Amino acid sequence: MNYRQRYEAYLELFNAQLTACCDEYLPLGSQVNEAARYSLLAGGKRVRAVLCMATCELLGGQAQQAAQLACAVEMLHCYSLIHDDLPCMDNDDFRRGKPSCHKAYGEATALLAGDLLLTEAFEVIANAPVDDRARVGACAALAHGAGSAGMVLGQELDLKYENQPVEEETLRLVHRNKTGALINAAMQMGASAAGGNAEDCQRLEQFAYDLGLVFQIVDDVLDVTSTSEELGKPIGSDAENNKTTFATLYGPQGAMELAKKINAEACGRLSRAYGERSEFLTALAENLLCRRG
Amino acid sequence: MNYRQRYEAYLELFNAQLTACCDEYLPLGSQVNEAARYSLLAGGKRVRAVLCMATCELLGGQAQQAAQLACAVEMLHCYSLIHDDLPCMDNDDFRRGKPSCHKAYGEATALLAGDLLLTEAFEVIANAPVDDRARVGACAALAHGAGSAGMVLGQELDLKYENQPVEEETLRLVHRNKTGALINAAMQMGASAAGGNAEDCQRLEQFAYDLGLVFQIVDDVLDVTSTSEELGKPIGSDAENNKTTFATLYGPQGAMELAKKINAEACGRLSRAYGERSEFLTALAENLLCRRG
Repeated sequence: MNYRQRYEAYLELFNAQLTACCDEYLPLGSQVNEAARYSLLAGGKRVRAVLCMATCELLGGQAQQAAQLACAVEMLHCYSLIHDDLPCMDNDDFRRGKPSCHKAYGEATALLAGDLLLTEAFEVIANAPVDDRARVGACAALAHGAGSAGMVLGQELDLKYENQPVEEETLRLVHRNKTGALINAAMQMGASAAGGNAEDCQRLEQFAYDLGLVFQIVDDVLDVTSTSEELGKPIGSDAENNKTTFATLYGPQGAMELAKKINAEACGRLSRAYGERSEFLTALAENLLCRRG
Repeated sequence: MNYRQRYEAYLELFNAQLTACCDEYLPLGSQVNEAARYSLLAGGKRVRAVLCMATCELLGGQAQQAAQLACAVEMLHCYSLIHDDLPCMDNDDFRRGKPSCHKAYGEATALLAGDLLLTEAFEVIANAPVDDRARVGACAALAHGAGSAGMVLGQELDLKYENQPVEEETLRLVHRNKTGALINAAMQMGASAAGGNAEDCQRLEQFAYDLGLVFQIVDDVLDVTSTSEELGKPIGSDAENNKTTFATLYGPQGAMELAKKINAEACGRLSRAYGERSEFLTALAENLLCRRG
């Protein structure tokens, strides 16, 4: 299988599992559950889910073992988007070309839908078809990546520094927590399913944070160089908000050079450690680097 | 030890563990963490924590084993109060005589503080000093009680039926999910720590839901018969909101009769199953029934 085929195969596994999870944990007949499904099933690249399953395979496990954990990480990611769009946060009316959750269902229901997805992510983990040790590892990894040492801290830093110029170090810190921590959680969850050891986990952590940073730098650059059609959202929003980004710090070309350098080093390290097994993950990194939207 | 002394002993264990959890999972230096601590450390009866530890002892475990799980259930309860007070929900400015979280820290920070407490509850469980099986059992119990088959559903039903007359059956359904499910989770988490069997869990479930219902009926009655000093919050709010309660359905006296009956049956069943070991839990139920605030 080439990269595309393998990505599609992961998505197929994931989508089947997500349907099953929705039936069990977000049953129809409740407005809040419907709102949660509306956002959860709106698509997206499912990068975190694919990373979770691919990491499990990298370490000798089967993707299917990690499919339910992959659902949990996407449910958690989805909660963060719903709450992030709320009026008291970013106040965004659209998400992936559709009305955001609170625009479609009202604020109270959207708040509860986010709470629900966050909660059910952990029920999904607790009932995943892996051994108890893997469940506990996945639960710890997801909560750690999403909490006070990860995503929620990242959200706080993002709000704190918006509309003021920041140094590169601060910008890296925001991205590390806001984006990197959950990408790392996704990979650590995959590692849990495969029974990865401490050395594996440490290597994957470095790769995950590098990948998150590259993802974010490219995001910054696309906000300047892409079109709103390619991106599926308005462009130029960072400049409009006077936001410091890698693109404002180094210009679009300088930022892309930095992203390429970080990416090459990260992929090199992974490849030296895992040889051919790492090919899918390094191809995924390459594709995130070269994406147009 | 008599009932009061034992309650105090549980609280002492719990408070020491909660301080340790705050240091580890809600470190100082972040506004969101401070907001979470502000609400989490504001006190309350800690009924859920005590139920968790007492259930562990009922089944032959030690209270200390369940202390960290007890912190998780109080963190989760606290998140629900913070989000419930938000303007898009109940819009309450005060909680336990202090400004509610969003009044003290702003809406965005309060939203994130609630998200954080919910998230960290599961990290606390994943790292609790019990075996992996107990951690997974506690994680499943808490997520199940807090999610689409429990508390979030209860919140949805509560919003759906507010300002309209409802039947007793509906009222029971709201309370079962809004209050009973988390009380049950607290007890099931204690049972997990002690390694309780399926028969224990089923008995405890019935007791927990009865206890939750009694708690709620007494709440309804106190809203009519208590003073705002005793209650620590304004009285008469249910009547003002045209809310159907057990007090409006049966009058304060009729409602108390019902509560006494449910309570006596629940305590009788527990006592027949566990003999003297059940004395603390039945005393706790009695105290909740006879409380004045």
